[in-house]
Amino acid sequence: MPKISQNLKKRARQVEVVLMDVDGTMTDGGVTLLSQSDGSALEIKTFDAHDGQGLTLARTAGLRTGCITGRESAALLRRAHEMKMEFIYMKQALKMPAYEEILRQAGVQDSAVAYIGDDLPDIPLMRRVGLAIAVGDAVPEVKRVAHYTTRALAGHGAVREALELILKSRGNWKKLIDQARA
Amino acid sequence: MPKISQNLKKRARQVEVVLMDVDGTMTDGGVTLLSQSDGSALEIKTFDAHDGQGLTLARTAGLRTGCITGRESAALLRRAHEMKMEFIYMKQALKMPAYEEILRQAGVQDSAVAYIGDDLPDIPLMRRVGLAIAVGDAVPEVKRVAHYTTRALAGHGAVREALELILKSRGNWKKLIDQARA
Amino acid sequence: MPKISQNLKKRARQVEVVLMDVDGTMTDGGVTLLSQSDGSALEIKTFDAHDGQGLTLARTAGLRTGCITGRESAALLRRAHEMKMEFIYMKQALKMPAYEEILRQAGVQDSAVAYIGDDLPDIPLMRRVGLAIAVGDAVPEVKRVAHYTTRALAGHGAVREALELILKSRGNWKKLIDQARA
Amino acid sequence: MPKISQNLKKRARQVEVVLMDVDGTMTDGGVTLLSQSDGSALEIKTFDAHDGQGLTLARTAGLRTGCITGRESAALLRRAHEMKMEFIYMKQALKMPAYEEILRQAGVQDSAVAYIGDDLPDIPLMRRVGLAIAVGDAVPEVKRVAHYTTRALAGHGAVREALELILKSRGNWKKLIDQARA
Repeated sequence: MPKISQNLKKRARQVEVVLMDVDGTMTDGGVTLLSQSDGSALEIKTFDAHDGQGLTLARTAGLRTGCITGRESAALLRRAHEMKMEFIYMKQALKMPAYEEILRQAGVQDSAVAYIGDDLPDIPLMRRVGLAIAVGDAVPEVKRVAHYTTRALAGHGAVREALELILKSRGNWKKLIDQARA
Repeated sequence: MPKISQNLKKRARQVEVVLMDVDGTMTDGGVTLLSQSDGSALEIKTFDAHDGQGLTLARTAGLRTGCITGRESAALLRRAHEMKMEFIYMKQALKMPAYEEILRQAGVQDSAVAYIGDDLPDIPLMRRVGLAIAVGDAVPEVKRVAHYTTRALAGHGAVREALELILKSRGNWKKLIDQARA
Repeated sequence: MPKISQNLKKRARQVEVVLMDVDGTMTDGGVTLLSQSDGSALEIKTFDAHDGQGLTLARTAGLRTGCITGRESAALLRRAHEMKMEFIYMKQALKMPAYEEILRQAGVQDSAVAYIGDDLPDIPLMRRVGLAIAVGDAVPEVKRVAHYTTRALAGHGAVREALELILKSRGNWKKLIDQARA
Repeated sequence: MPKISQNLKKRARQVEVVLMDVDGTMTDGGVTLLSQSDGSALEIKTFDAHDGQGLTLARTAGLRTGCITGRESAALLRRAHEMKMEFIYMKQALKMPAYEEILRQAGVQDSAVAYIGDDLPDIPLMRRVGLAIAVGDAVPEVKRVAHYTTRALAGHGAVREALELILKSRGNWKKLIDQARA
């Protein structure tokens, strides 16, 4: 992880809620479908174990986490529950309504929210939140509006890197290492 | 994306229909099969979220899209429908008959068609269309007949790059960014 | 593909039968299992579309093809049939008995056989065949006994590269390009 | 594989039991879930064929092997059985109790154990065992407590490299090559 600038650290310290996109952010962007013999198809999703460890530690540190996505799948639901995510919004063609509902539920302002994204539909939220993070393989338009772009690629530690940035800025990280659970 | 030459821009501006191969073009070329206990096997396909966003935006911009492939799967059918593809031709050992049927249905000439491909069976179509695009990991024979080879690899943004090339040449791109849906 | 040496070309020209390992040769070495709710697990295999095109063209050119593997799966069986493989030997802890049976069935000598492999159990066959090919990510012991190591990695065109080497040495390749089917 | 130092060789020669984490160590860290139509999700795991060959050879050489993981899946269970693993501990949020049970069952001290890991929950065990090995893409905190970090990445030969290090230090490797089975 590159050195954290003072401006970035200031933004990160205010974060209480961490939201993120799913496909291309929590996954490597692969949309995988299994053909069924009846002509339908089931969705397969691949998440990252290091990201998962980061999300669990973020919860341990008291951060609230969630995701907003255009797709819907039982795979995401199971993974989000495993990671103890509090806000799970699926089938959101536009992400702003879900975002504003989360603000109300969490009782926080934009400045207390971090958002991690990779593609065009994430831009409106990234312009509002206190800390906007692009994954390493986000499209150029998303990187341009981000306060930080991870070195790690989506589905390969990008979420972990974003969460470590926040937890280290808050001074939580070292204490958390011993609290990690498999 | 590299700078777009004047010749390429001219070809791209005439495009009304964008056709493409599936395996090795919309996917990374992996042919994935799930063994069933009855001895049969079900097909799994992995598409790319960034490509999907590009295909949806292309439809928003009024382009007509489709695919021609030698294989057949419910996975492709579901994904093609999600992307609002209009022309879906599966089980085409030779691609020319499907291509000519699409020309008739769309009421366009070769010059109004772009085709994205990666391997030998794509070559006959690529020699006819107005804009022939090879994915970054296409075989050398395909790259040689292409007007443009993407920097991105198949299943990792190659289709998105091809579509952005067309949409930017037409002057549609900037307006489309705000119309992106998740 | 690197330049083909005269010695290699001579070996390749004599090839009539092309045999290969499966995991780590026709696939990238991933052994993928799907947990079932009854506690069993189903096998998933990912093959490469470019390899598949090469195997089909090899058949068109009159080469006979086959695989010898220690594992067993419906996924491999379906793919081998799609590629019109003639010799399919599964569950072979030792590969020599299957190899010798194939020699008898095909009525050929060692010098007429090419074998593509990646790991230790492939070495005994590679010491016998006329043309022994290691995939780009084979273990060092296998590369040492190979007459040729592909630049391409297993599951990403290694088999295609091996087949093109043989077909080009025989002078078949250019004519085959137009005979490719999707 | 880099040259093995004398200190490392000394540690490796004492190893009788090789234990390892699963996700991010025996796999590339992908946590893959298949959505079912009833809203549940099944777990898919991708292991590495070269790692598997290494684990089988380790058993042939008389080493005892096992895994300790926080997750639970039929996929892991099948693979562990294929590799003839003796110790299989799943659903272990903390790994120390399982580790101590294995020590008792195997009747060995810390110095006779090697452990391969990638993330924070592996650190307590890695501080105790005689030979602690981090996979090439382990998090920095894990690499810092490891006696050796593999060049290979998890799910792509890291376990194989670790096992070869041990088997070569014991002088077993050359003899084992001929005993490899597919």
